[in-house]
Amino acid sequence: MKIMAINAGSSTLKWKLFEMPDKTTIASGMIDRLGSPKSVFKLKYNGQKIQREEAIESNEVAVLSILDALKDMKIIEKFEDIVAFGHRVVAGGEVFKKSEIVTEENLKKIQQLAEYAPLHNKIESYYISVFKKLVPRAIQVAVFDTSFFVDIPEVNYLYSIDLEDYKKYHVRRYGAHGTSHRYIVSRLNQIVDGGIGDKNAIILHLGSGASISAIKQGKAFDISMGFTPLAGIMMSSRSGDIDFSIIPYLMRKLGISDVSKMIDILNNKSGLLGISGVSPDMRDVEAQEDTNQRAKLALEMYRNRILKFIGSYTAEMGGVDVIAFTAGVGENSTEVREDILSGLEYMGVKIDHDKNAQNGHESRITTDDSTVAAYTIPTNEELMIAQDTYSFAKYLD
Amino acid sequence: MKIMAINAGSSTLKWKLFEMPDKTTIASGMIDRLGSPKSVFKLKYNGQKIQREEAIESNEVAVLSILDALKDMKIIEKFEDIVAFGHRVVAGGEVFKKSEIVTEENLKKIQQLAEYAPLHNKIESYYISVFKKLVPRAIQVAVFDTSFFVDIPEVNYLYSIDLEDYKKYHVRRYGAHGTSHRYIVSRLNQIVDGGIGDKNAIILHLGSGASISAIKQGKAFDISMGFTPLAGIMMSSRSGDIDFSIIPYLMRKLGISDVSKMIDILNNKSGLLGISGVSPDMRDVEAQEDTNQRAKLALEMYRNRILKFIGSYTAEMGGVDVIAFTAGVGENSTEVREDILSGLEYMGVKIDHDKNAQNGHESRITTDDSTVAAYTIPTNEELMIAQDTYSFAKYLD
Repeated sequence: MKIMAINAGSSTLKWKLFEMPDKTTIASGMIDRLGSPKSVFKLKYNGQKIQREEAIESNEVAVLSILDALKDMKIIEKFEDIVAFGHRVVAGGEVFKKSEIVTEENLKKIQQLAEYAPLHNKIESYYISVFKKLVPRAIQVAVFDTSFFVDIPEVNYLYSIDLEDYKKYHVRRYGAHGTSHRYIVSRLNQIVDGGIGDKNAIILHLGSGASISAIKQGKAFDISMGFTPLAGIMMSSRSGDIDFSIIPYLMRKLGISDVSKMIDILNNKSGLLGISGVSPDMRDVEAQEDTNQRAKLALEMYRNRILKFIGSYTAEMGGVDVIAFTAGVGENSTEVREDILSGLEYMGVKIDHDKNAQNGHESRITTDDSTVAAYTIPTNEELMIAQDTYSFAKYLD
Repeated sequence: MKIMAINAGSSTLKWKLFEMPDKTTIASGMIDRLGSPKSVFKLKYNGQKIQREEAIESNEVAVLSILDALKDMKIIEKFEDIVAFGHRVVAGGEVFKKSEIVTEENLKKIQQLAEYAPLHNKIESYYISVFKKLVPRAIQVAVFDTSFFVDIPEVNYLYSIDLEDYKKYHVRRYGAHGTSHRYIVSRLNQIVDGGIGDKNAIILHLGSGASISAIKQGKAFDISMGFTPLAGIMMSSRSGDIDFSIIPYLMRKLGISDVSKMIDILNNKSGLLGISGVSPDMRDVEAQEDTNQRAKLALEMYRNRILKFIGSYTAEMGGVDVIAFTAGVGENSTEVREDILSGLEYMGVKIDHDKNAQNGHESRITTDDSTVAAYTIPTNEELMIAQDTYSFAKYLD
């Protein structure tokens, strides 16, 4: 049974075609710079890599170009060979506690939730409509970034503001990257002896967006991202947590009258980029660590903010047994993992330096006598989306 | 040598008269509801308590009413018997790294720093002028809330935003309550065996404003309050840290167009008050813990936020040896201390329940075999102010 996982952004469209329930990847690809005359179309299949530049000017053309390519390459005979499409949707609010088939009613709800993630939910729901139209017999499943955290304890999801703001306007910690954190939990349950159902884990999803979750006795307990993905640790270009009072002060200083411009600055000009002045990309910043004082400072701050979250989650869970690193930086920066784990030596963490020197594959990176077991685990959100989608699609035959 | 410590607010004026260097309190008092026709004048001297209602309509009249009362009661013969006045000043920015005599030049600087603490610095600098005018031969010393934290590592004082915002506009973590934290450090150095110069301490100043500091090897290392006192843990009526993205969202929902109104809401309608709906006063909230679900929730959140800060400071210092509770709630709520310390049992903290049952005096409240030594220590910011002031005044004779 062929199932496609879709991850759509404002100018990108990523996809992966799975054979389920085998979990094998048949083909994958992405369209970049969508809407420009020089859009990039990439596709991987059977060891082949296709890359071409062409004008892909609408979302509908983008979807058609993928489906047509799959047909041209005989990967599918007709569009309907793909029986289900699973879509990453950023904001599920408190409405969607798990993945769901996108009925007309659910589609409306997803559109309404755009209030929490204006850029994301709008484009995602639009793509769902496009797939519905082009492959009308397939089912569309929405997999929400927030679902995994919707049932964390209220002590952790509430902000200490007027409780009415939660009751009336649903202001709360929603978190994000839930599909990735959920995938890592499922892997930990397989690779940690006895699973993590009776253990406390902290998962570090360190990509260009970055979030840290607390998993208490196997269940989501806390998440560093908040009402939106702006909150939490320092990221590539996002500030993470700051004192809100800075905003009106900076608005006066910078002559900015629209508060949403400040949101933009905190999302896109801050974090590693804002401190280093070099780049939002960890690889670029690490490359200048020895020659550029600001790059060094950015790395020190990055490490510090992560250590603080690990400490705070350890305290609120009453201890930690397992730490997992994932996503771009987490999977591929030996140095970041080393920096963080060495900061935890006070709690009995012992790094296995040889294992930590390797990147990009699943591995335990602490010694056998370390009080906390740390792992590198490549994330696989697409597989998680495909699995959720399959759980509905399997009843179709 | 008589020295008076002054703590001025917008409608209050607190003072304490010391005999230095003996550190004995001669008299103390406060004026409340200043500017109203029913101002309250309170004075304590030699076991006597005076309280009267009268119209005190200007700051100058307020100061005169105190000095005249001291003369009337023969505590002083003439105003000049008080050789120095020490003033609490909230914002010292990066300009004032320690307490200083208020020259004309310094007075201007304090006024310029009002940008960081509009309500406070303005009134404080005004009172300094009044005392200068009424007691021209005395010296005026400014003791800053922020000085103690001005030299924490840049990794901790910088926000992960554009570094130019720090360089040009001095946006950084300044902290607050520094005089209290500094006093507690001085006490810890006396009561902890060997002092805390080679230890890591966490100080919990839990009053209606509340802040937590990390003291690494005897030196200020981090502080939960930020650019302003709004940041950090949940407080009586302040939110502490929140996701900034909430603000523009709530402004739309609440129909508020002025961002400074949101600052006001986060300062005055949030925290314990906002969640419990009962009161900003911990005693009121604790009294309803068993009967009011929201009061219970507020207390759980309060505990949670504090635990998280203790955990994060423990991680960034690489361990903690000493924890101290101070200020209204810290000194007087057995329950809050118990809640927090029991949450730290995972790190080997063992409460001495009998000692913790006592409030309001200096005491070790953990057992001898606790991995971390915790203390209740009543704060004494006025004494700290008097001591700083004396360090200048002693050269006068």
